[in-house]
Amino acid sequence: MPSPLFNQLIHSLCCLPGVGKKSAQRMALYLIERDKVSAKRLVRVLAESIEKIDRCVRCRNLTEDLLCSLCGSERSNKGLLCVVETPADLLAIEQANCFFGTYFVLHGHLSPIDGIGPEELGFDELFKQLHEHDLKEVILATNLTLEGETTAQFIADKSRSLGKKVSRIAYGVPMGGELEYVDGGTLSLALDRRKII
Amino acid sequence: MPSPLFNQLIHSLCCLPGVGKKSAQRMALYLIERDKVSAKRLVRVLAESIEKIDRCVRCRNLTEDLLCSLCGSERSNKGLLCVVETPADLLAIEQANCFFGTYFVLHGHLSPIDGIGPEELGFDELFKQLHEHDLKEVILATNLTLEGETTAQFIADKSRSLGKKVSRIAYGVPMGGELEYVDGGTLSLALDRRKII
Repeated sequence: MPSPLFNQLIHSLCCLPGVGKKSAQRMALYLIERDKVSAKRLVRVLAESIEKIDRCVRCRNLTEDLLCSLCGSERSNKGLLCVVETPADLLAIEQANCFFGTYFVLHGHLSPIDGIGPEELGFDELFKQLHEHDLKEVILATNLTLEGETTAQFIADKSRSLGKKVSRIAYGVPMGGELEYVDGGTLSLALDRRKII
Repeated sequence: MPSPLFNQLIHSLCCLPGVGKKSAQRMALYLIERDKVSAKRLVRVLAESIEKIDRCVRCRNLTEDLLCSLCGSERSNKGLLCVVETPADLLAIEQANCFFGTYFVLHGHLSPIDGIGPEELGFDELFKQLHEHDLKEVILATNLTLEGETTAQFIADKSRSLGKKVSRIAYGVPMGGELEYVDGGTLSLALDRRKII
């Protein structure tokens, strides 16, 4: 039976995504027994992150500064704005190293049942930016879920009414995907959106 | 590209066992975006654990008190002392709920090449306890590795010279183990240590 404080530590580590009781116990033992230096650094950095990291005033990406590094930098293509649901989606696109425009992070999708409307997703700020900036195209990269599609549709309608070009990222069979193992919904979509070559 | 502080947080989380960059990023986003309450609790509990958790003066198990909960409690069988290598081993035995004696945690095994000798493993304290207490049997539950065996052998020799009964936990085919998938070393051991029924 671990000590009460040790038990609390295990319990606190269980809040991490993908970490169950067994992994949390292993982590707790590692932090306390093997690597107190890293444990102390984790405490310090996490405390500082909780306090300082907030949303970029322009794109709502996570940052400890007023403007995030992407909004602050001289990106090659400021004419493209990519709208994503979460900072994780933004990071995924950045890590693919295939897009050099700017972003707008919604931090969710339209979901009236959960009380998430245009206000929570920062639509005011988004549409203000569409007005102000010399934007050539809005790329909608929300998820291909019912809520993601609805959100994309809402932004598309509004952007078009502001005279902006709007696009939606392509959906279909993923790279390396074997048809045998691809789900029916994706297959039907891929056939529907087929491209003449 | 995540912000510098966010990058530091990902890097700090990577110190956890079994956590790579991708999982660390997911954890960091979760802590900062979704669950700041749990994140704050983690900071508080981890900081307190680093400061307060130390070794029990008697069995060297991890505890924030002078004596751990096992040494402090009225265990049913104080005549049995189980020697294990790590607090994780102790927890594994406790969770199996099959042993009701006391423990002694070595925090390692004899390994002269790493500078780990009898002193680092607390042998002085262990043998002092063998002298003092009304101990009936020392159970050696170190790992079945070269170092674990050497350590067990060392403690066994000394304990016997102090007139104590010494035993080693049984090794063989694990419960539910199918012979087809059990490694050769274990099989050979299981045959060698066969028991007449």
